[in-house]
Amino acid sequence: MAASSAFLPELGTQVVVPVAAVVGIAFAVLQWVLVSKVKLTPEPPRRGDGSAGKSGGAGASEFLIEEEEGLNEHNVVVKCAEIQNAISEGATSFLFTEYKYVGLFMGIFAVLIFLFLGSVESFSTKSQPCHYSKGKTCKPALANAIFSTIAFVLGAVTSLVSGFLGMKIATYANARTTLEARKGVGKAFITAFRSGAVMGFLLAASGLFVLYIAINLFGIYYGDDWEGLYEAITGYGLGGSSMALFGRVGGGIYTKAADVGADLVGKVERNIPEDDPRNPAVIADNVGDNVGDIAGMGSDLFGSYAESSCAALVVASISSFGINHEFTPMLYPLLISSVGIIACLITTLFATDFFEIKAVDEIEPALKKQLIISTAVMTVGIALVSWLGLPYTFTIYNFGVQKTVYNWQLFLCVAVGLWAGLVIGFVTEYYTSNAYSPVQDVADSCRTGAATNVIFGLALGYKSVIIPIFAIAFSIFLSFSLAAMYGVAVAALGMLSTIATGLAIDAYGPISDNAGGIAEMAGMSHRIRERTDALDAAGNTTAAIGKGFAIGSAALVSLALFGAFVSRAAISTVDVLSPKVFIGLIVGAMLPYWFSAMTMKSVGSAALKMVEEVRRQFNTIPGLMEGTTKPDYATCVKISTDASIKEMIPPGALVMLTPLIVGILFGVETLSGVLAGALVSGVQIAISASNTGGAWDNAKKYIEAGASEHARTLGPKGSDPHKAAVIGDTIGDPLKDTSGPSLNILIKLMAVESLVFAPFFATHGGILFKWL
Amino acid sequence: MAASSAFLPELGTQVVVPVAAVVGIAFAVLQWVLVSKVKLTPEPPRRGDGSAGKSGGAGASEFLIEEEEGLNEHNVVVKCAEIQNAISEGATSFLFTEYKYVGLFMGIFAVLIFLFLGSVESFSTKSQPCHYSKGKTCKPALANAIFSTIAFVLGAVTSLVSGFLGMKIATYANARTTLEARKGVGKAFITAFRSGAVMGFLLAASGLFVLYIAINLFGIYYGDDWEGLYEAITGYGLGGSSMALFGRVGGGIYTKAADVGADLVGKVERNIPEDDPRNPAVIADNVGDNVGDIAGMGSDLFGSYAESSCAALVVASISSFGINHEFTPMLYPLLISSVGIIACLITTLFATDFFEIKAVDEIEPALKKQLIISTAVMTVGIALVSWLGLPYTFTIYNFGVQKTVYNWQLFLCVAVGLWAGLVIGFVTEYYTSNAYSPVQDVADSCRTGAATNVIFGLALGYKSVIIPIFAIAFSIFLSFSLAAMYGVAVAALGMLSTIATGLAIDAYGPISDNAGGIAEMAGMSHRIRERTDALDAAGNTTAAIGKGFAIGSAALVSLALFGAFVSRAAISTVDVLSPKVFIGLIVGAMLPYWFSAMTMKSVGSAALKMVEEVRRQFNTIPGLMEGTTKPDYATCVKISTDASIKEMIPPGALVMLTPLIVGILFGVETLSGVLAGALVSGVQIAISASNTGGAWDNAKKYIEAGASEHARTLGPKGSDPHKAAVIGDTIGDPLKDTSGPSLNILIKLMAVESLVFAPFFATHGGILFKWL
Repeated sequence: MAASSAFLPELGTQVVVPVAAVVGIAFAVLQWVLVSKVKLTPEPPRRGDGSAGKSGGAGASEFLIEEEEGLNEHNVVVKCAEIQNAISEGATSFLFTEYKYVGLFMGIFAVLIFLFLGSVESFSTKSQPCHYSKGKTCKPALANAIFSTIAFVLGAVTSLVSGFLGMKIATYANARTTLEARKGVGKAFITAFRSGAVMGFLLAASGLFVLYIAINLFGIYYGDDWEGLYEAITGYGLGGSSMALFGRVGGGIYTKAADVGADLVGKVERNIPEDDPRNPAVIADNVGDNVGDIAGMGSDLFGSYAESSCAALVVASISSFGINHEFTPMLYPLLISSVGIIACLITTLFATDFFEIKAVDEIEPALKKQLIISTAVMTVGIALVSWLGLPYTFTIYNFGVQKTVYNWQLFLCVAVGLWAGLVIGFVTEYYTSNAYSPVQDVADSCRTGAATNVIFGLALGYKSVIIPIFAIAFSIFLSFSLAAMYGVAVAALGMLSTIATGLAIDAYGPISDNAGGIAEMAGMSHRIRERTDALDAAGNTTAAIGKGFAIGSAALVSLALFGAFVSRAAISTVDVLSPKVFIGLIVGAMLPYWFSAMTMKSVGSAALKMVEEVRRQFNTIPGLMEGTTKPDYATCVKISTDASIKEMIPPGALVMLTPLIVGILFGVETLSGVLAGALVSGVQIAISASNTGGAWDNAKKYIEAGASEHARTLGPKGSDPHKAAVIGDTIGDPLKDTSGPSLNILIKLMAVESLVFAPFFATHGGILFKWL
Repeated sequence: MAASSAFLPELGTQVVVPVAAVVGIAFAVLQWVLVSKVKLTPEPPRRGDGSAGKSGGAGASEFLIEEEEGLNEHNVVVKCAEIQNAISEGATSFLFTEYKYVGLFMGIFAVLIFLFLGSVESFSTKSQPCHYSKGKTCKPALANAIFSTIAFVLGAVTSLVSGFLGMKIATYANARTTLEARKGVGKAFITAFRSGAVMGFLLAASGLFVLYIAINLFGIYYGDDWEGLYEAITGYGLGGSSMALFGRVGGGIYTKAADVGADLVGKVERNIPEDDPRNPAVIADNVGDNVGDIAGMGSDLFGSYAESSCAALVVASISSFGINHEFTPMLYPLLISSVGIIACLITTLFATDFFEIKAVDEIEPALKKQLIISTAVMTVGIALVSWLGLPYTFTIYNFGVQKTVYNWQLFLCVAVGLWAGLVIGFVTEYYTSNAYSPVQDVADSCRTGAATNVIFGLALGYKSVIIPIFAIAFSIFLSFSLAAMYGVAVAALGMLSTIATGLAIDAYGPISDNAGGIAEMAGMSHRIRERTDALDAAGNTTAAIGKGFAIGSAALVSLALFGAFVSRAAISTVDVLSPKVFIGLIVGAMLPYWFSAMTMKSVGSAALKMVEEVRRQFNTIPGLMEGTTKPDYATCVKISTDASIKEMIPPGALVMLTPLIVGILFGVETLSGVLAGALVSGVQIAISASNTGGAWDNAKKYIEAGASEHARTLGPKGSDPHKAAVIGDTIGDPLKDTSGPSLNILIKLMAVESLVFAPFFATHGGILFKWL
């Protein structure tokens, strides 16, 4: 039947999806091989292409390329390798500790899922009549319990592995980027960018691959019961997202406790530069970049991807695709992602092969071009998939009724998500890059001290919410009107379809940041540090853009999941004019505040401990300030590790328990209100927090760099305006790297959890109201 | 018919309401007379009761009461009078300027109301069949247009007069409080508190009185058409609230530009104390307290009161009270307010007559007792009114159906609002008073600098949202379940029924603050300043409590207005699962951010200008720092005035135009979404902003006062932790006094505006969707 309605036959889909995934993985491996050509061992002196240095002698007269510097210093390479090892070990040890606790949680939650979902039909093994495919028989609720649990574990493990590999790649790449920076900014850029691409493609492709395998394996048991099959698959999204929560929160607390602690004593009190090896918290700070920004961000976007796919699939399964068993249109979400990988692959070549970066001011435009090219290429890809992979017309389940949709309408849904992502990206750039007036105004307000800096920064963050929200609202309106919740889900997928490129430019940031840190710690020359700083400044903006994407897609994903939840919970309206719903709405809108209070306080308390330890070391270790004695890095690493493990539990519990408590005590209507409230309130705080933080960071960099007349009147480093800017930057740290980005996960995770538990809540939930 | 159903006959109601209002006004006048007994002119030396000083000679040996100090310094009294005049003149001139612009707006908007509402039936003068009273004839839409416009003007003028009188009383009282502080803290407290009471009672009573008169006068034309009568009365709420918007925003920008500007140069750069007469911005700062905190707060709460009454009345008019023309139950909302005035009157006597404050640490408990006593007395009052003023059973309009309600259920609705207000008050106190650990933790975080102070302060504000939201949610759930939107409206009225006491303790704060400023400027002794500081510290907490009340009641009022709007727009469900509604919800949730961005940026920019001017004066006026030359106060007053007038327009326009634009272009469903989104998101930011600001302010005061071992390790004034605390305090200023409290008005005003224009939107709105 599939062949009759869509051009692409079932067999074609069964080939295209895994092949795209494998191509993506192969491309990631290729990039990794290219990065690994940069050697971290000192090479013997040789002549030739200028890619290696000659030992001894500072006057590198034989190299023609002017910008090469310090290539022939043996001990620098050894030092870089040492530092990289320390960072990598710290990060690995932290992630293993984190995963130990998270694994425990995963086990408990897996049992909960099994018990709760199994209890829906009292663990009966009898088949049931289907809900949506009238007259057919579907598998028992017990099967849903078992397979949802398996899918949950699968999603969780994929997320953990993705985060871990991302971290490994990043730590593998950062010292190599430092070494390449000796040869010039272009070489360093390519190394950092390729490493980011390894992570981006690995994650996008493996997420797709595992999902594809799971669908096919589950299909062996489920057979014709697609309703049950895709219901069980939603566990994959839950698994991915719950691991992402702990990754984001734990990693976020880790990195910011170390960063804030290091800065407060090092930069503010002791007046030593950032990443100075004398600072005891410096290794912890660099470890933090890898576990927080890289592993956390990776898990987060993987979660979004898994969830939007699951949301689309579950709605599709009760639409005409699912009811008529049309395989190719059913896997339309996976086809979109497959084409996305190819589109991003082409895009990457523009950064690494087709053009070469030669000067510092080409970096930001090159990264921006990546966004534009991937969006343009992908638009064509979406058109192709919608034309080949969908029948001309079909019906979509819309809260109780079937709605007729055309393939070009679905194209519009995906495309609007994709382009809204671009708009959000550019707006974020405008508000967080110091090339534009908003950040320059914030920098200017440092003239009158830290207080005005904070007031202006907060106002900037609030203002930066306006256009992204209109973009999200427009995408929602269009996709919702055209194809109900399925439209919203594929719009989210559209925004995430260029995830490989998004992650590549996103991971590039912390890698460059670390490269700079390593250069400083290895005592490399000022010029090399300047190059890595330039890479890093562009990285700050791309990190903010990445967060913008993450939040925008989270908003769409959550709405899609919310819609899927409502459908499965058999609610036909979520009426604000019902007291049950309204109290959910207002309490839900409060949750992001509660959550942010917890995470920010955690960062604050952990930073205080770090400050005390760093101060203690400076005061009690003789010769530390003079650089004759090494600080005790390990204690600082331990403080960050312990704090983040301990502090990630309460916010994690808040997010994971709220849907369960509300669903069980108050029922699905109040839960719908909570989800809607958390979504519409959380997305605002998330955007404003991450943009405020990004703006403060770059306002500080603006003053430090002193690239314009105006910037020079505010600087130099150590001036009063600069000190005010450092305070703003420090306040922004937990906002932009801990509480802000974690909120994405809060809104997505509560929605996907509600979706997975929907049958349970619908059967056994709302006991408080039943009892009244 | 009324007599048969409620104990209290119509005539009784016609007597009780105006008499209560007149009693309230008389009580206010009495308090004013008592305050005016403190003379601002130096008195001739006389013996006697110790209430006056003897001129000349510092050793006041003949006075037995130990704490009297500096009573016999002639020139101090003269100086106080001078300063008071300057403040009063500045405030009067600002308010007149503000009112000129606001008056223009009022005129334009009145015309809009007339045109829009008149156009509903094309300005036809024909009577129409009633919507809800089947088979009866109601007045034409043109009458609604005319009377809504009149009600709007009436509400606006009452609001302006209330704000103006409040300001006059406050400026009249502050120098008198300073002079009384010479005699001891108890005398000063009573003067400040009585002055607050003048404002509280005047406002509560006149609001009730004007509303009562309007209902009776409009009734002459409307006769039996109660539906139309109370529809037109809603204009009263709109008028009150739109003036409050400009009062809050304009006043808020004024006061904080001056405050931030004065502090940044005076305290931080020049190291001179707060309110030092050498600071050129000091008069502007003190004027600001009166126009922002007093006039603004007065208008705000008057608006809430007017709106909740109107919301209750309009729902009642289409319930059994209105349909069966039962006068006493119909005026139940006014009866609640009448009893409230009496309850507050009794409560006030506890502070001024039954007990006397002798020591500093009795101030805060005395103010807290006011809250508890008024709540307890009022609970009895509500029970009485519900028993006497309501039939045992009746029906309430509930989105299309009539719901049966018992009088004891309505008692519960009002009572839950009243007690939720008390809970919010106490939670606010816990989070903002430096007697408890949250503020002490924030103070402690100043050890590591301004950054951690800000992080902890923001986290505190976020956290402080939790319990108030649960309290609001519980009140909403209970009152909504028992008596639909009427229940919510009377719950709001319950929270506001003790408004006279609330305003009294609220106005007390800025009066004490100004009293301290005057003491400093008049060069009075350190001990007197200590006394006024103690009054002021308690005032900070009560100001935060007042804001908590204002926000809590705003949430309930908005929901009630929202419900009334939905009823009048003939919508039966506001379904989040409709794209039209959802986009409204998410955009609505964004509006408070947009609004805050505007107001905070305004304060920031105005403060920058002020800083420049203050610096200029310090740098160019010789002898200013030495105190030999007077600064140019007038220029600073002008900067604040100009900035606030100019800057209040964009945020004002955002709030006033949004409902019009959304209603006209997108229609009533999207507008419902916007209102719900703005409500659930705005209430969170409003609470967190005002508590964060309050906490920073008191953390600073905690360090300054050095009352505990812990506090002394952080101080003294000028220490690094203290400097960090001052930065936090400065950031908190616009949060707690400009953007935070203005958000109440945003959510209420958009709702009441939508309600007034509902017939127009329902007829002519949504042209964009109609056109698509």
